[in-house]
Amino acid sequence: MDKAIEIWGGKSYFKVETVKDGKSVVDLWREKGGLVIHLTMYGMHICKRIDEISKIEKPMLVIVGSEKVDGWYYHNVDYNLAVGNQPHSEIAALALFLDRLYKGRELYNTFEDSRLKIIPQEVGKKVVKNG
Amino acid sequence: MDKAIEIWGGKSYFKVETVKDGKSVVDLWREKGGLVIHLTMYGMHICKRIDEISKIEKPMLVIVGSEKVDGWYYHNVDYNLAVGNQPHSEIAALALFLDRLYKGRELYNTFEDSRLKIIPQEVGKKVVKNG
Repeated sequence: MDKAIEIWGGKSYFKVETVKDGKSVVDLWREKGGLVIHLTMYGMHICKRIDEISKIEKPMLVIVGSEKVDGWYYHNVDYNLAVGNQPHSEIAALALFLDRLYKGRELYNTFEDSRLKIIPQEVGKKVVKNG
Repeated sequence: MDKAIEIWGGKSYFKVETVKDGKSVVDLWREKGGLVIHLTMYGMHICKRIDEISKIEKPMLVIVGSEKVDGWYYHNVDYNLAVGNQPHSEIAALALFLDRLYKGRELYNTFEDSRLKIIPQEVGKKVVKNG
């Protein structure tokens, strides 16, 4: 992660932190007025809630779990949201959720602090220094 | 995978196979008239090609690589396609590509041979027998 950020930028966007108690992160986030969304195949379909969620102007915490998520989370978040009510990859769910939220704009993201920049090619790779 | 299919269905949709030589799979696919798409951050931006690709009525093989993909693939596929020209998860790239291709319809997929079915809930889990 650190190496990727050094090369491709995003120092002010990404931060990795390990916490022991995920629940207190959720509680604190909501106490401070933030919105918490839990992505789970058991939740309400994303297509039915994404317009509503898009309009909420609060800092957003998105939770993706592994195979078994503690029931506590279902009851202590603002939305349990299903990116399809079928089993799926959590990474895929997060990607689709963000894509719907950002309306595809995230695919054009670039970071000013990147050292390298890709020039899209039909075939092969073209990478240049940024700036 | 097998267990997930048994519970959630899709026997006629999904098949997992391990092959030693990925290149021959690509060659054979194209020989038989199929389309081959390689998802790579070095390729052309998905938004510039997805309409064109959506119109092609050929069986589609989608390739996602790991950190280092053999240069051969770049030269022997029909499209090198970037789901954003930034480093990203291959799973996320595949999810977004399929979402654009299917125009979101995939999120409503259900399988007739599933044993269980999820009833979407605001809070908690509701699963019923299918059929």
